[in-house]
Formats: sequence, C-alpha cells, structure tokens
Amino acid sequence: MTVAVYLPDTETNDWWVDMLHDLLPDWQVMRMDAVTEPASVRYAVVWRPRTGDLAQFPNIKAVVSIGAGIDHVLADEKLPADVPIIRTVGDDLTQRMREYVALHVLRHHRDMPRQLQAQRDHDWHSIVVPVAPNRVVGVMGLGNLGAAAARTLADLGFDTRGWSRSPKTIDGVEAFSGAEGFDAFLSGCEILVNLLPLTDETRGVMNAELFGKLAEGACVINCARGPHLVDDDLLAALDAGQIKQATLDVFHTEPLPEDHVFWDHPAVTVTPHIASRIDAGTGGRIISANLKTFEETGTCADIADAARGY
Amino acid sequence: MTVAVYLPDTETNDWWVDMLHDLLPDWQVMRMDAVTEPASVRYAVVWRPRTGDLAQFPNIKAVVSIGAGIDHVLADEKLPADVPIIRTVGDDLTQRMREYVALHVLRHHRDMPRQLQAQRDHDWHSIVVPVAPNRVVGVMGLGNLGAAAARTLADLGFDTRGWSRSPKTIDGVEAFSGAEGFDAFLSGCEILVNLLPLTDETRGVMNAELFGKLAEGACVINCARGPHLVDDDLLAALDAGQIKQATLDVFHTEPLPEDHVFWDHPAVTVTPHIASRIDAGTGGRIISANLKTFEETGTCADIADAARGY
Repeated sequence: MTVAVYLPDTETNDWWVDMLHDLLPDWQVMRMDAVTEPASVRYAVVWRPRTGDLAQFPNIKAVVSIGAGIDHVLADEKLPADVPIIRTVGDDLTQRMREYVALHVLRHHRDMPRQLQAQRDHDWHSIVVPVAPNRVVGVMGLGNLGAAAARTLADLGFDTRGWSRSPKTIDGVEAFSGAEGFDAFLSGCEILVNLLPLTDETRGVMNAELFGKLAEGACVINCARGPHLVDDDLLAALDAGQIKQATLDVFHTEPLPEDHVFWDHPAVTVTPHIASRIDAGTGGRIISANLKTFEETGTCADIADAARGY
Repeated sequence: MTVAVYLPDTETNDWWVDMLHDLLPDWQVMRMDAVTEPASVRYAVVWRPRTGDLAQFPNIKAVVSIGAGIDHVLADEKLPADVPIIRTVGDDLTQRMREYVALHVLRHHRDMPRQLQAQRDHDWHSIVVPVAPNRVVGVMGLGNLGAAAARTLADLGFDTRGWSRSPKTIDGVEAFSGAEGFDAFLSGCEILVNLLPLTDETRGVMNAELFGKLAEGACVINCARGPHLVDDDLLAALDAGQIKQATLDVFHTEPLPEDHVFWDHPAVTVTPHIASRIDAGTGGRIISANLKTFEETGTCADIADAARGY
C-alpha cells in the first residue's frame, strides 16, 4: 500500500513524507517524484498537484487535499473524475479561522486602521463606533469554517447574518440562502466575510455589483480564495468610498507579487494566507486517521462532493 | 428635588443636563455651577468632580459616577464619607469592553503589529503562532467588566485565567484569588489584561516585579486606570524584551500629553480611553433609572462599596 505525497515546496514535501511515515508505519509513504511503480499507489496526499500528477496512478482509491478546500485539486484537468477527494478539516483549522475572522471583524468594527493613524498623529480623538449589536456583519459560506465564524461573531454580540447555497440554521445568526436570498443578505451589510468554496459559480463573486449592494463604506474580508475577488473592482470601490477597508488573506497569485498594488494601499490589510494555516502536526494526525478509516470502511466523514466543488 | 451635574467639559456638561432633564421631567436638573440653593441638592451626577464640589451640599443623598469606576469621585478629599456612590454600568458598557478586550488580545495573539510591519516590507512571511487553546491569557479584576471579558476570551478558545481579590467562579475560566493566588496567576501568563478597580492596593500594580513574573515576551493590556501602571517600569520591560507589546487605553494624565514617549513607541498601542466609552444615550437611561429607584427605595443595585474603593 503506497501513499504518494506532493507539495510544491521540496523541503515541506520531505517533511510531510517523514511525518506521515511515522504516523502510518505499516504503509509505504513516499514523495510522488520517487514513485517507481505507479500501479502500487493507492492514495495521494497533495497540495496544488500539477496537471496529470494524479492520472498516472491507475489504482488510486482516494486523493487527500492538505486543507479544507479542494479547488487546487479540481484545477487538475486530468484528474480522474471518479476518485473521492478527502478534505482536511479539524478543530485547529476551525479554531484558527474563528480567531482570524473575530480579529479582523473587530479591527474594522472598532476602526483600528484610523485609530493607529490617530496614534501616529498624536491625536487624542475618540472615534465613535456603534456597539456590536448595532453592527451588521455577514458571512458568505456556511461550511465548517463559515458556520463556526458566524457563531463566533454572534457570540461576540454582532448583528450576524449568514448566506449559503442551501438553507442552514445557526443559533443567533440570521440565515439567508440561494440566489433569491443573496441581495437581502448583502443589503445593509457593514462588514462582509467571504468563506465560500471556490467553484465556477463563486469565482469573481466579490465584484463591483456585490460591493454596490453592501452598506456604503462597508468593509470586506476575504479569507477563502483569491479568485473570489475581482481585484480591480475592489480598487475602484475603495477609490469611490463604496468600500472603506479590505482585509485580504488570499490572492490570485500567491505569494502576492512584491510589486502588487495591494501591499502599499492604505485601505488594504494584507496577510500571507494565514487565516487558518494548517499546523503540520495536527494536519498529519487528521490525514492519517482519515486514510485509515477510508482504507477500512471505503469512506470517511471528510469526503468532498467533487460535483459541487467542495 | 435638585440634581446637580458636573463634567469637566462645559459643552458635554450642558448636554448631560439637557438629556437628564428630559429623562427626569419631574426633577430639577441643573449644572452644578448654576446651583443657588445648595441645600436643595439631593443628588449629584459627576465625572471627575473637583475637590469640595460635593461637600457643599448638606442634604445630598447619593452621588452618581458617570462610569463604572468610582476612583475619580473618591479622589475628592472632602467627599462626605457617608454618601452612597452609584456606579453606572450596563449592557452597552460591558459589551464595548468585551469587544475591546477580544480585539486587543487577538491582535497580540496573532501578532498583528509584526504582521503589519511585514506588509510594509512587502514580506510574504508567515508568522507562526500557537492556536488559542495553547495561549495563556489572564484577566486581573473580575467585576462586571472583567468577568464578561474573561468569559469572552474563554469562548474564543483561549486558555483563560482570572484573578480577583475574593474568590469568583466563571465558566471556562481558571480562577485565582487573593494575595496568595497572585503569583500562580501571573506565572506563564502570555497576555495580561488589567480590569482592576483603582484603589490604594492596586495603584502601581503593573510594575517591574509583576512584569518579571509573566511569561517572557508577554503582552499587557491596560483598560482600567492609568495609575495602575508604572510607566517607567513598562518602558524598561519593553527595552529588555520581558514585555513584547503593550496596549494602553488609560494614562496617568488624560488626554495623553502630546510629547509623551508612548505615542511613538513601536511596541505600544495607544487608544484614547475608548475601551468602554459610555454612550451618552444609554448612560442617561441607566442613570435616570438608578436615581428613580434610589429615590423610591433608598438603594439600588449599582451602589459601590466606598470602603473597598469599587
């Protein structure tokens, strides 16, 4: 039973091979590039596999995405259509996303960018903001991470809304769903958090039309995938004052190119895809447990729906 | 029945007089400076009264502090010793303090100051931090505000401790109390939040000795009163790396003097006493309700213990 591991960074790849080797002592774990008998590979553990990487294994039973999203796997046009994809989700990932969303929603809510500017100006001026129950915050996407983020915001006292493709119920969160509920969800929304999966439907969803439906001077936070956002539309909305501030954790190209306009934009906070960075130790434990379960039972709880794209 | 109102700022003072006048239509509400018959004054509503202000009213029944703290009233050496002091606390104040503490603990937890520096440097470097359950956060002072802040931090997933003079129990918070519990509370604490009342016992509590007992490189947040902190001890601890970052909302002199070293210190975040700024509308409703209750029953829930100092 061979497990082939691929991550773009060689050093990180070796690190994962060693870790999974220790966690799965009865299995053969190796770098994908070191595989000499493709027919022996039953599982692949990958982050951003190259096109054709997975099609070379005729007996592959499942692919593991090192992360909650599977868009980076589906991006492989030669991916065998019927191979199950196992996502990597867990308490640590959810916890880190809750922290990130709480931090950045509170930063925008209490206008920390302007507060820090006031400090640089030695300006003892109070910036008056509403209390959280009078602040409308919306979370797009109510999967594991989105639902946990929405609950956290509601617990912090915000007037919290959530939108998902199919109807969901979350305590303390006003739920909207489907295309027909999208405009009502956006209307009056003052801080918008994107946690949608990246699919053909959601690509470019954060665009001029969406920005125009939010409350004037709204703030947006993208901690899902770079291609959800139309960069030029955001820049125009910031220029126009329609959007006041943005916090971006994900980008069309990562690392964000050194000369990208976002780095120095006064109204944009850039973080390097750390919202819910997987901790390798935790990730390894989750992945090895999922692989063992799948091998024994032919399925596991974290299987994605490739047709839906998440 | 006369209510005398005093706040240092004349405009704000007039504003409060008008508001309380509307909320207490059957009472006579006036600026303290406009009182011509001191014997008619039964109540005083004050923020930072001047020495002797309150002693001039022989028939005063209670003093209302416009805020949760009463130190600014007790600072009046001529304050009649037996006059009850009514604090102003309420859901909005508690909510705002929860927001402030959650925001600034998360900022330090996720090392936003260094993250923002990385952005200025166009540096796509991940700052690795532990997940909140592996981060020890402590709240000193478990009154209304401190208890709510500690609960909020526990809900966010932090390994949360609380310290109070007398024993308290808060769900999800490891409780320490009394002088004998103080060192154990501080030991290993990575982010410390001060919400103690200001008393003779707590003045200067944030000093070199305390900083030395925290985890190395700890962060501290003072959202109680300026005199809790020994400024020079903090500056020395920051220089030595014993303390990594500090967020200060309160200062010995407010507004913070324009040439104060805190303004430009790279490891200090200054906010202008806004952690739990009372919203005048809400404050007015709370104060008028407390005054009516006190007048009818001779007491009310928010009476402070002047002997304890809070």
